Amino acid sequence: MSHEIYLDNSATTRPYDEVVQYIVEVSRSYYGNPSSLHTKGIEAENLIKKARLQTANVLRADPKEIYFTSGGTESNNLAVLGYLRANPRAGKHIITSEIEHPSVLEVFKHLASEGFRVDYIPVDTRGTIKLEALRNTVDRETALMSFMLANNEVGAIQPVSEIVKIRKELCPSAVIHIDAVQAFGKLPIYPAGMNIELLSMSSHKIHGPKGIGALYVKKGVRIKPILLGGGQETALRSGTENVPGICGFGLAAETTASAMEDNLTKVSGLKEFFIGKIKENFEDAVINSSDEALPYIINVSFPNLKSEVLLHHLEQKGIFVSTGSACSSHKSSQSHVLKAMGVSAKYIDGAIRFSLSAQNTPEELDTTINSLKEIIPVISIKHRGKV
Amino acid sequence: MSHEIYLDNSATTRPYDEVVQYIVEVSRSYYGNPSSLHTKGIEAENLIKKARLQTANVLRADPKEIYFTSGGTESNNLAVLGYLRANPRAGKHIITSEIEHPSVLEVFKHLASEGFRVDYIPVDTRGTIKLEALRNTVDRETALMSFMLANNEVGAIQPVSEIVKIRKELCPSAVIHIDAVQAFGKLPIYPAGMNIELLSMSSHKIHGPKGIGALYVKKGVRIKPILLGGGQETALRSGTENVPGICGFGLAAETTASAMEDNLTKVSGLKEFFIGKIKENFEDAVINSSDEALPYIINVSFPNLKSEVLLHHLEQKGIFVSTGSACSSHKSSQSHVLKAMGVSAKYIDGAIRFSLSAQNTPEELDTTINSLKEIIPVISIKHRGKV
Repeated sequence: MSHEIYLDNSATTRPYDEVVQYIVEVSRSYYGNPSSLHTKGIEAENLIKKARLQTANVLRADPKEIYFTSGGTESNNLAVLGYLRANPRAGKHIITSEIEHPSVLEVFKHLASEGFRVDYIPVDTRGTIKLEALRNTVDRETALMSFMLANNEVGAIQPVSEIVKIRKELCPSAVIHIDAVQAFGKLPIYPAGMNIELLSMSSHKIHGPKGIGALYVKKGVRIKPILLGGGQETALRSGTENVPGICGFGLAAETTASAMEDNLTKVSGLKEFFIGKIKENFEDAVINSSDEALPYIINVSFPNLKSEVLLHHLEQKGIFVSTGSACSSHKSSQSHVLKAMGVSAKYIDGAIRFSLSAQNTPEELDTTINSLKEIIPVISIKHRGKV
Repeated sequence: MSHEIYLDNSATTRPYDEVVQYIVEVSRSYYGNPSSLHTKGIEAENLIKKARLQTANVLRADPKEIYFTSGGTESNNLAVLGYLRANPRAGKHIITSEIEHPSVLEVFKHLASEGFRVDYIPVDTRGTIKLEALRNTVDRETALMSFMLANNEVGAIQPVSEIVKIRKELCPSAVIHIDAVQAFGKLPIYPAGMNIELLSMSSHKIHGPKGIGALYVKKGVRIKPILLGGGQETALRSGTENVPGICGFGLAAETTASAMEDNLTKVSGLKEFFIGKIKENFEDAVINSSDEALPYIINVSFPNLKSEVLLHHLEQKGIFVSTGSACSSHKSSQSHVLKAMGVSAKYIDGAIRFSLSAQNTPEELDTTINSLKEIIPVISIKHRGKV
């Protein structure tokens, strides 16, 4: 196997070298417990402060609005559960979409079992929520709405400003939680300007360390902790702070965000190039990611083959992709996202997610296309039928 | 400042060099998402498997009984909440002691507000729970008991075998959770032999990375997750696995445990040496850690001074200690542990925790004693009163 081509960046990314170096430095020289009263504690606390500021700056938020968690899943759980627990009189109606991440969907399922009225807004063929359906669903009882900014399987971007408008019109007291795990550092996201209250981030999707994430909580919005104990993170998230992880996340956020526009331009070019090549070479392939989607995610269906077979053939050539999201790929069930978008079973079976990073190159994508050209005729069911 | 003397190892430890190196290697070369179907995912999954085995081996447990979490706080929360949520008919009575960590005490407080009957067992002057009180408290309704194996402020070790006997006699269906955050890797702990069901561990107390911990759950014991989502860790702990953190923890556990006996002998010697010197030089000092306590923790009260003042004078000489636990040191309230042990307010005010690692030396402790001899006469209130 020659050069590795990693096109599974929405599952996780390779951490930046400078982030790994920073984690080493913090682990070795600033290993104190931030709660300790002595210099070693204060040094660690100051490093967290710096990372909180770096993260807040990316969102143009106040550092006091940033709470570090163990990752995107915890952030999503904390946002939804934490808000509803802290505001029991906010209403018993909650809304999300059909194409959310399991860390939102499973929480909603749990809340339904607790007596919450739960609505799942359907999406159109591009994966964006149907605004009319949302308008018909929000009512005076709505406490919270939770939507992914960019979908993890197809990159569909939700129209947050339209959602905010509908909220203002029909239930101004409802809060909006945005799962920005896939979009953070890739799109300009300013919660105050967007007028949303809660926003989840994850570090390992932006070349930061695993096991760390953050939740933005708008000043004045009350949420209750999930984890109880020593009262760290202003009592919102107990547990000794993961100082090296937090520092690595802060640096990764700053680094990613500083190149955000350039990266977006570059990756948009990569997407255009790749889709052009797909269309040119695979007439019957269907692009499940719309032109308006986050360019980092390109979901393509190749009919008449099993995506898992294609995935394994690609990895033998050193090319790493996904059949859906990493979170659900161990399950045999079909993608709930593509299903909600109305993709037929045949096309879901052959769906591959190519997810990019700004570090990918046109040459890598060219090699990928050539590999697909070699593999697909061999593994397609139609072909084998003929033999 | 010359050589640093770190005597705050119960707050957190400096990670082993080989652990940091391993984290770097895993972060750089094995950055895949364990849920990914391709090699990069499988490699990461195998590394987790290895770490699970390393951790299980230390406990002589089955790897299937080990669940990785984000740390000791999450492990304690998950053990107590998770068991009670999964077993609603187990009874509405729960028992802990007066000297537990906030991550247990706060959960118990929360459960009391939910209608659980909660009892806090008092301790004697050595910090061990009063077995007669426990015997009078356990009843047919008891669902769970939670006790720290070694206390984080004074090192008091709880008589687990006696607790297990009382359980057997009075309520065999009750489960026992052991918070072993301070004892793991320092004492031989074999949950199956001890006959307990749940046991919490933390990585950063044993020279492993921060932000990672584990929970031992005896086979057959059902617990419900706190974090919901993609179903990682056999659906008990959702969220992309912190692969480098898990690997670092596994290696730290193995490394610490392989030297456990030698370390225990060495640190027992250090404790004896240090206490001898304290008694020799500070007639009115009171040792709050009993002879039977975990030797890694030496809690000493110096009357007529404020421990925080002593802490800051020591740090000016490059010696790092704690006034209590790191988790509560930011709070101005007095140590609930020393209070429960019947230590008078005057002695609580002057309490310092010296917490050792096997890397500390007699020379370091000697230097500490000399520093104490310089500082204490200057800062003691009695002395200043005379001037």
